[in-house]
Amino acid sequence: MELYTALVHYPVYDKNRRLVATAVTNIDVHDIARASATFGVKGYFLVTPVAQQRELVGELLDHWTDGPGARYNPRRQAAIARARVVPDLAAAATQIRAETGHDPITIGTGANVKDRMVSFHQMRKLLEEREGSALLIFGTGWGLEESFLDAFDYVLAPIEGPVEYNHLSVRSAAAIIMDRLRGLRDPEEN
Amino acid sequence: MELYTALVHYPVYDKNRRLVATAVTNIDVHDIARASATFGVKGYFLVTPVAQQRELVGELLDHWTDGPGARYNPRRQAAIARARVVPDLAAAATQIRAETGHDPITIGTGANVKDRMVSFHQMRKLLEEREGSALLIFGTGWGLEESFLDAFDYVLAPIEGPVEYNHLSVRSAAAIIMDRLRGLRDPEEN
Repeated sequence: MELYTALVHYPVYDKNRRLVATAVTNIDVHDIARASATFGVKGYFLVTPVAQQRELVGELLDHWTDGPGARYNPRRQAAIARARVVPDLAAAATQIRAETGHDPITIGTGANVKDRMVSFHQMRKLLEEREGSALLIFGTGWGLEESFLDAFDYVLAPIEGPVEYNHLSVRSAAAIIMDRLRGLRDPEEN
Repeated sequence: MELYTALVHYPVYDKNRRLVATAVTNIDVHDIARASATFGVKGYFLVTPVAQQRELVGELLDHWTDGPGARYNPRRQAAIARARVVPDLAAAATQIRAETGHDPITIGTGANVKDRMVSFHQMRKLLEEREGSALLIFGTGWGLEESFLDAFDYVLAPIEGPVEYNHLSVRSAAAIIMDRLRGLRDPEEN
């Protein structure tokens, strides 16, 4: 399948579990665009309903794709070129349908997922074997709102290490998830 | 083995392949400390020969371990508690020896490694099976200086996706590498 990523800034929780729209951060744009480029992701959607935020991000993207940033660092340009700003996931799905001819399957992620989990191994196989397109969705703040997450076609199991602690930044989590789904594996692992 | 991580700010290359000491960034401290906590890393060393930088980072760490940051976000405190500032890798090795009774084996990383590479699978097994301690070393800027990297006991293969591009941020690369070496695997993968 063609893979797309989305970073959602609403609806997500804050640290007191209130619903908020988080601000888009520079570093999330860059780090996740670079990981998306590395793992062959076709488009990376920055999702925020706040019009002013979309304008600001649009200016940031222009700086790196057409402006001084593009000349300063062409590698960065190549990564940022796949980033786009949209108000919601429906708008992302519309673009994906236009590009691939398929409605994407939606894959949610979260550190606290407990039900209805699909393993990374299963999802990796599904992405390899099926036709169509898939949208992999990451949440900012303290994670994607529950009913929003529940509405996705699949929800990935949380990333776990050998200990209890699992409070990764969304940048780290997104990188690990893309690697688990699309990274080249050592021959002796297969 | 007990695993430790180090983020090296000198000797590294800049984009024109000149040797430089990079500045320590806030986000590198936080993201790599959180990934280190998630993957059961015992200590995370921020390595810079610049005394003023070490002072600044020391203040940042104090803010999160004993100051207002600790009260604001105890999860962050737990992650940052394992971070320490040292002038060079010898100072990190001295601390590791004092804590574990062993000189650590040194494991270098880089996006452009071509020779003498050990696979992630081999290194994961070695960490599981051997006694002692290991120091996993990440470079900032455009990567660790070549002769410095060559002096390590092992050098990990670069992270690769399904495409040519592999310009991850050091935060993303560090997260992926720790996951590949220490992340829990789906049962069907073993």
